[in-house]
Amino acid sequence: MTKRISSEEIMSSDSFYRRNLINCLSGYKSLNLIGTQDSAGITNLALFSQVFHIGANPPMVGILFRPNTVIRHTLDNIMETGFFTMNHVTSEFYKEAHWTSARWEESEFEATGIAPEFLDGFKAPFVRDSPVRLACSLLETQTLKVNQTILLIGSIDSIYIDERGLRADGSLDLGSLGTVTVAGLDDYFVGKRLGRLSYAKSDKMPEEI
Amino acid sequence: MTKRISSEEIMSSDSFYRRNLINCLSGYKSLNLIGTQDSAGITNLALFSQVFHIGANPPMVGILFRPNTVIRHTLDNIMETGFFTMNHVTSEFYKEAHWTSARWEESEFEATGIAPEFLDGFKAPFVRDSPVRLACSLLETQTLKVNQTILLIGSIDSIYIDERGLRADGSLDLGSLGTVTVAGLDDYFVGKRLGRLSYAKSDKMPEEI
Repeated sequence: MTKRISSEEIMSSDSFYRRNLINCLSGYKSLNLIGTQDSAGITNLALFSQVFHIGANPPMVGILFRPNTVIRHTLDNIMETGFFTMNHVTSEFYKEAHWTSARWEESEFEATGIAPEFLDGFKAPFVRDSPVRLACSLLETQTLKVNQTILLIGSIDSIYIDERGLRADGSLDLGSLGTVTVAGLDDYFVGKRLGRLSYAKSDKMPEEI
Repeated sequence: MTKRISSEEIMSSDSFYRRNLINCLSGYKSLNLIGTQDSAGITNLALFSQVFHIGANPPMVGILFRPNTVIRHTLDNIMETGFFTMNHVTSEFYKEAHWTSARWEESEFEATGIAPEFLDGFKAPFVRDSPVRLACSLLETQTLKVNQTILLIGSIDSIYIDERGLRADGSLDLGSLGTVTVAGLDDYFVGKRLGRLSYAKSDKMPEEI
């Protein structure tokens, strides 16, 4: 049976229900731990599901930051230093990744036991055990007029990939890399492959490649 | 072994390799068919993986449109009518969904065999067999200065959900709904659940709920 929920019902539902529902509506989401440090070198690690690529030439990523979050160390650190890392989560440490969203006095690396790693002099910490890691620099921020959400755009300066997941055509095999995805705020999954499909042409149905 | 790819190597790689790689970097992506029609009532259906929620109060979604796409019926139709639908893809029709991205003269509904459905007088077509469907209205567009990508923001006016996937707390069970996710441009997956985790608190590790 299909249930219809109107905008009036959405708005009159309690905030917990509404938040759960709205966060699930787009489907599975990209999940990344974002690593930063402040100018004194204190590290921070935070889990984000509102991350997306903005372009390939030059390579850029976008991250959305909610306006009314009380503690925004990640955004503050990026604005202060200009640098951040993005790190895929695997099933080996997805519980620790979720745990980074608790309120911590100390660095989330120490608190949760996720091991940091510094690479090639880059001024933000990576997650040592992540199979896909990006070194990124702040390009610009824009505030969305509709609700003061902040869209941060970064350039991708270097990529560190576990070689077993990098195919000859440049694509990543997220299945073999063990990348985790999230539904809503707290429901974690790995991928079970249906198929990789051929480039879509009108003369025949796409096939598995 | 970890492979490092520098920004110089990214930029000097061929465009096919670069496009594959950059499209995979954020991880699994939200996958939705967007249904629109023009003012003459000609329908269009297009597959998007750059869709995300922007806020829950009021509920809003964002979609990114690349600036240099030659044919942009979806964006043109939304600008013309103000309306669009978002529809989750399932394993039952993911090949047809991929096929919508071929160049078609006729409507992608007719061409691929995906059945449209009109609901409650809304002026855009839904995908009949999709378990999660949103009726959305255009709120605004912004052009990103960095590369002229267009960010379209829509309000969610009503939601149609297959009831078996709607939990009492408002969250969706994307596993039982059969929602599909995509890696890169062409690699399709369903979710295999790791666990749903308790709200993160600093005094103890999150547990499965």
